[in-house]
Amino acid sequence: MDITVAVDCMGGDHGPQVTVPAVVDYLHRNPGTDIVLVGLPDVIESELRALKATPNPRLRIQPASEVVGMDESPALALRGKKNSSMRVALDLVKSGAAQACVSAGNTGALIATSRFVLKTLPGIDRPALAVVLPTIRGHTYVLDLGANVDCSAEHLLQFGVMGATLVATVENKERPSIGLLNIGEEEIKGNEVVKQAAELLRDSGLNFYGNIEGNDIYKGTTDVVVCDGFVGNVALKTSEGVAQMLSTFLREEFKRNILTKFAGLVALPVIKAFKRRVDHRRYNGASLLGLRGIVIKSHGSADRHAFRFAIARAVDEVRGGMLRRMSEGVAQLPDHLKNPSANPGPLTAASPV
Amino acid sequence: MDITVAVDCMGGDHGPQVTVPAVVDYLHRNPGTDIVLVGLPDVIESELRALKATPNPRLRIQPASEVVGMDESPALALRGKKNSSMRVALDLVKSGAAQACVSAGNTGALIATSRFVLKTLPGIDRPALAVVLPTIRGHTYVLDLGANVDCSAEHLLQFGVMGATLVATVENKERPSIGLLNIGEEEIKGNEVVKQAAELLRDSGLNFYGNIEGNDIYKGTTDVVVCDGFVGNVALKTSEGVAQMLSTFLREEFKRNILTKFAGLVALPVIKAFKRRVDHRRYNGASLLGLRGIVIKSHGSADRHAFRFAIARAVDEVRGGMLRRMSEGVAQLPDHLKNPSANPGPLTAASPV
Repeated sequence: MDITVAVDCMGGDHGPQVTVPAVVDYLHRNPGTDIVLVGLPDVIESELRALKATPNPRLRIQPASEVVGMDESPALALRGKKNSSMRVALDLVKSGAAQACVSAGNTGALIATSRFVLKTLPGIDRPALAVVLPTIRGHTYVLDLGANVDCSAEHLLQFGVMGATLVATVENKERPSIGLLNIGEEEIKGNEVVKQAAELLRDSGLNFYGNIEGNDIYKGTTDVVVCDGFVGNVALKTSEGVAQMLSTFLREEFKRNILTKFAGLVALPVIKAFKRRVDHRRYNGASLLGLRGIVIKSHGSADRHAFRFAIARAVDEVRGGMLRRMSEGVAQLPDHLKNPSANPGPLTAASPV
Repeated sequence: MDITVAVDCMGGDHGPQVTVPAVVDYLHRNPGTDIVLVGLPDVIESELRALKATPNPRLRIQPASEVVGMDESPALALRGKKNSSMRVALDLVKSGAAQACVSAGNTGALIATSRFVLKTLPGIDRPALAVVLPTIRGHTYVLDLGANVDCSAEHLLQFGVMGATLVATVENKERPSIGLLNIGEEEIKGNEVVKQAAELLRDSGLNFYGNIEGNDIYKGTTDVVVCDGFVGNVALKTSEGVAQMLSTFLREEFKRNILTKFAGLVALPVIKAFKRRVDHRRYNGASLLGLRGIVIKSHGSADRHAFRFAIARAVDEVRGGMLRRMSEGVAQLPDHLKNPSANPGPLTAASPV
């Protein structure tokens, strides 16, 4: 199968300086994929020249004259910048010229524009952002990460379907287990929405494990973790905070005096192996699920290495036939759960994840 | 000032085996405090004998014939066990015989019983659980940690008053800064309740910093972090999960082969210093705030060392005059914010924190 990925070259904190080299690296390792570089042609070409990239029939440039700012209002970006690199990349997916879009741009704008351009799949009210996180056992997929706040129980059920489909697609796992993030394992625990969502998930035919708690995410208790976007975003950012603090403390302890510095030198290969193991760049690329097209949101601060992983994720989703599987997943829900709330509600986006 | 602390000796995963030695340790270091050991006299006396504790006029036993199980329903514990060690300890606070109660028992039962026995302070609808967490700069106080789910904006405002009072009391800090946990720093971000809470906090006269994100907790951006109990509980447990995973990975890397084991031996003093620095036992003792009495919830799995910290925390709060300050804090709110929602709503407790 020929796969074409549209890359929003202008998005992210570093723009083409990161996205173009990442694409070149990706193609070097995966020569069978077609990539469309979307953005300001001059800038992209100058990056390609700087990389001394040889002309490649798999690589073409699609001009887009505007750039969505990282702090720009999603509504303004959607209405005002119809020729932005983000929008043009999504249009390529819409028209079928590409099967996936990858962007490190403004999260809110990407969600709003994707939803407007691509529309949601039948039975899905709102797109959701899913990330893969490392666990003691392997890794787990968590959604929603901030695309939706104020979720209903029906939305959480849909997140369950989407998460299960994503894992089935990219991990080749039949009937992935789904945990509902709560504040206790008992059925009586949690807020009203979560209690209702547990009932819906139990009736859904999905492989519902039950309630899980925050620490279960990193224990790898389930393949998928379902939560409200507010809770998911807080959990993700809190995790980043803990990891940063611990790594700062460890570094400080190794720098304390001449003896600890020596110990640090001896332990350096171990520390490096440890860092590789938890390198968040390997987990870069949040899947924006529930749309009639595949969209991957890279972290805004992603480097060349991290952005390449986001491209690889997009290709994996296309190759696994995620959109078809997602529609089938919704269709397999019991009838009374299929078209739940028709009210899509307000769409608010978290800060870039 | 003479301070008496009532200790629920029977609570926690280990009961008197941990609580009694912790009390003896505490009194050894702080001979000026009176402690009432509440529980089954035989068991407590046998623990004291095992410790070869010398008779101490500061230490007395208050018999209580029942024990609240760690998994018991809070409602049943409240109604059915009027002579539980937890209840009797709280009754001592109510009657003025003690100024604070410390328990490692069932969180839900402790919250429900405390609220029933002690009642909330004027202007406070619901008690909240606050913990202190380490940060890159020092530490921060986070509330609510699971005493309340489905909070209103008014509840979040009250958490702000309570958290600020706690920090002012135990840290001697004038006008502590308060952050509202959200999914972005911008005012437009977040769910409806959080947006309203931000407005109330801005009008409150408190030192409101504004919205903060999950990673700000461990950056130490503010002295107090205010959030819904559901979100707070997930954030806390997720943090525990990340820390456990990272420490497992680090241990595994040091155990990989003979060379890494040698590196581990050389780095051992550094790793130990690091572990002391993030030792969660030093942070044991969640403050149950907003009641007409001081209640400290120790982690159920606390050891002797950790439980001693919970006792110290109780004494600090009494010594700092927290209850008086809390009433003053509520009284200083602008009139229209003083008696917000009269509806206390359902009280649900998270799993033991």
